[in-house]
Amino acid sequence: MSLHSTQTEFAAHVERREGRSAILLVCEHASNAFPAPWGTLGLTEGQQSAHVAWDPGALDLARCLSARLDAALVHAPVSRLIYDLNRGPARADAMAARSEVHEIPGNADLTPQDRLQRTEALYLPFHTALHAEVARRLALGQATVLVTIHSFTPIYHGQKRRVEFGVIHDADDRMARAIVAEAEAGTDLICGLNAPYSAADGVTHTLRLQATPYGLANAMLEIRNDLIATQAQAEGMADRLAPVLQAALARLTED
Amino acid sequence: MSLHSTQTEFAAHVERREGRSAILLVCEHASNAFPAPWGTLGLTEGQQSAHVAWDPGALDLARCLSARLDAALVHAPVSRLIYDLNRGPARADAMAARSEVHEIPGNADLTPQDRLQRTEALYLPFHTALHAEVARRLALGQATVLVTIHSFTPIYHGQKRRVEFGVIHDADDRMARAIVAEAEAGTDLICGLNAPYSAADGVTHTLRLQATPYGLANAMLEIRNDLIATQAQAEGMADRLAPVLQAALARLTED
Repeated sequence: MSLHSTQTEFAAHVERREGRSAILLVCEHASNAFPAPWGTLGLTEGQQSAHVAWDPGALDLARCLSARLDAALVHAPVSRLIYDLNRGPARADAMAARSEVHEIPGNADLTPQDRLQRTEALYLPFHTALHAEVARRLALGQATVLVTIHSFTPIYHGQKRRVEFGVIHDADDRMARAIVAEAEAGTDLICGLNAPYSAADGVTHTLRLQATPYGLANAMLEIRNDLIATQAQAEGMADRLAPVLQAALARLTED
Repeated sequence: MSLHSTQTEFAAHVERREGRSAILLVCEHASNAFPAPWGTLGLTEGQQSAHVAWDPGALDLARCLSARLDAALVHAPVSRLIYDLNRGPARADAMAARSEVHEIPGNADLTPQDRLQRTEALYLPFHTALHAEVARRLALGQATVLVTIHSFTPIYHGQKRRVEFGVIHDADDRMARAIVAEAEAGTDLICGLNAPYSAADGVTHTLRLQATPYGLANAMLEIRNDLIATQAQAEGMADRLAPVLQAALARLTED
């Protein structure tokens, strides 16, 4: 299936653009939409709603945090199985043919032109929109700390994960360490620095692309998805994490 | 002067997009154009044609290298005094009020909205276009090494500079070291690694933004502008440097 003549383009969603917080929230795995021209990639309905297709609860939590912090939020319009926006276009897992235990039929035999078409339709519009938000804030002299919001599955490859709240850093660990310290002091969440995975697993692309070139503090948050499975749970988690992020931000400013 | 309602946007120039070289050439200081709505910023004609406004000879050299290497080239449409595309929008010298010994009247009292307007009109379109070229190559699986082309003035703050050919690296020094080694072995140019300045001077923004996030090898070339003052000199310099770049590329591939 050759799609490179398609002009389809999916813009990032931007909410609360004028939010006054220094925190700029990003949710790359917000959506489990499978729109044309790609469609469902041969996945079952169960797979389309499972963590393989998106980060369940992450957008709900991100929106609740956005409201409590008055923070801008940029989020993805399409499933990460069509294009994983937290991966560069050279990465095989940007359009994974297999993810955990799932085969992705619609990604099995992609041509270079198919990969280019998804890159131009999804990856570039998302990161161009996020870059515009970052650059606008820098031009206006607004303090900016990039925080990406993810969720992870409690069971992965058959193993139960004990950690509830992971904070991952790339080259600059200031914000991640501040968040873990505040979460350990102020909540009963089981926290992990660079858990359940780390930058060595290639999961910090958005931080590297959007924050590191400008020397902006940044962190990637990972919440175990059984803790944010309902809207009420997402609200409750945001009630716990918003003060943690505020206090972490204050620590950065003090340094 | 408030310009933020202006819709003006200046796209990057892209030449030889289908070039087959792994090298992707970039020339951020290619132009000494001072178009509306900004105009000449109160500069004299002499200043508008001097190195303060652009890198004289850099675009001529970049085009000659592009032809000899069959390499794509992305270059700037507007003077760096209106926006220096090798600087992020938070940097004062992105829109310098003073450069070397020159006052820039039109940059003296910029408001945050003025800075935002230039960022959106010049910085974002340029780096979005360059990012699109980088991402396209990555999606198609094309080897890519980013090489930026600059020139520097022989006399700076009254001091004569002896170096003729400087090669500057950021975090990844592979390509820069390979170029210096090949230039010292194969030419009689007076070469310098991280001369006449280095990443510590904040001059590697394009490399950090466009190459480092993808792990792409990269280097910034600086040629003393009295050596490329005419088209004939630029042709001659390209005759010397094209084989140097080819050999440096081959070294990278061997590693």
